[in-house]
Amino acid sequence: MKILKSQIVKIKKGKNLKVVSPTNIYGAQFGNNCFVGPFTEIQKNVKIGDNTKIQSHSFICELVNIGKNCFIGHGVVFINDAFKDSKPANGKKSKWLKTKINSNVYIGSNSTILPISICSNVVIGAGSVVTKNITKPGKYAGNPAKKIK
Amino acid sequence: MKILKSQIVKIKKGKNLKVVSPTNIYGAQFGNNCFVGPFTEIQKNVKIGDNTKIQSHSFICELVNIGKNCFIGHGVVFINDAFKDSKPANGKKSKWLKTKINSNVYIGSNSTILPISICSNVVIGAGSVVTKNITKPGKYAGNPAKKIK
Amino acid sequence: MKILKSQIVKIKKGKNLKVVSPTNIYGAQFGNNCFVGPFTEIQKNVKIGDNTKIQSHSFICELVNIGKNCFIGHGVVFINDAFKDSKPANGKKSKWLKTKINSNVYIGSNSTILPISICSNVVIGAGSVVTKNITKPGKYAGNPAKKIK
Repeated sequence: MKILKSQIVKIKKGKNLKVVSPTNIYGAQFGNNCFVGPFTEIQKNVKIGDNTKIQSHSFICELVNIGKNCFIGHGVVFINDAFKDSKPANGKKSKWLKTKINSNVYIGSNSTILPISICSNVVIGAGSVVTKNITKPGKYAGNPAKKIK
Repeated sequence: MKILKSQIVKIKKGKNLKVVSPTNIYGAQFGNNCFVGPFTEIQKNVKIGDNTKIQSHSFICELVNIGKNCFIGHGVVFINDAFKDSKPANGKKSKWLKTKINSNVYIGSNSTILPISICSNVVIGAGSVVTKNITKPGKYAGNPAKKIK
Repeated sequence: MKILKSQIVKIKKGKNLKVVSPTNIYGAQFGNNCFVGPFTEIQKNVKIGDNTKIQSHSFICELVNIGKNCFIGHGVVFINDAFKDSKPANGKKSKWLKTKINSNVYIGSNSTILPISICSNVVIGAGSVVTKNITKPGKYAGNPAKKIK
């Protein structure tokens, strides 16, 4: 059995990054004034903009790019492997898809974000499952998430 | 970079509190015979009544008050910031809202609880999103949660 | 106050088990080439088949049996106590129910799995709540999960 240990390693960071451990963060990049809560995992090449806060229990995978002034709630999970051929990519990164979250996006707790893009100035209600691109500012919620305001 | 460490600090507790670490609990108050599972966060001023069990991966925020004999399932997330002005309160506590869970309330795993109140003797099905006050005993489920029994 | 510590204890394992700590795993059984991500809990008597991967933040309870070549996404929660008498079993294991996941089953992140069985060759979309047995291969999603393909 091989036991690896959660850690904070090979990150790039701006000023005032605050992290509550334990957390597993490797190869991610943070702007200024970011916060990361406990029991989170952030994978390599993730980019997170200035003033963005990642709350406890969230998982942010490779190929996710998050803008400035965003709020990622507790237990929010991002996805890069959408089981395109009805099975996991199983490490074949060419099958993974990107997620782009623009600035001033507020994602409610326990939401699930498929590999899509979300424009700036969007609110996602708690417990939502976002399955499609969001191209207009506003409030979205539900499973699947739809515009509610 | 500032790395804080998850801990158990400044809590008030009755008899027989049992906790599985790691967990981040600060300034919360527990009655007798409570249980808290691993990978949980419980914030300050949370009150939890006698015999109530908080399962693994749950997040309980400030302004949540939970009664006696309750069961909070795995991965249950509470919310005090409902993005009232379509954005996070960003630390302005005057914008946060309270949650009151009365006694004998059983919340299924992976549920999300907006800032509402739930009367005694209620069952919330797993994976629910509770968006409104619940004032009648019974079973509720879905996103948003509705009475099913 | 009694503080227990998450650990990896009394497990049975095949070759090449890889685990990212912290995790709380006790009395579970793994086949060959399994992976378990961080911030997971796997309870006693759980059986997990060859090549199956359990991603971060998942919770797998007693009485769950998972086959070969499965993928359990991030934040997936299993349930053995379905509150049958409208309340938790409260430790009475005779009230718990089993879950059987057959082989080549891929469960999307943040899904919730009630005590049911799922046949081989099934994909569960992210954020689903699976409330009934699945007996035909295909893709299922939603709350409650329904066949979508």
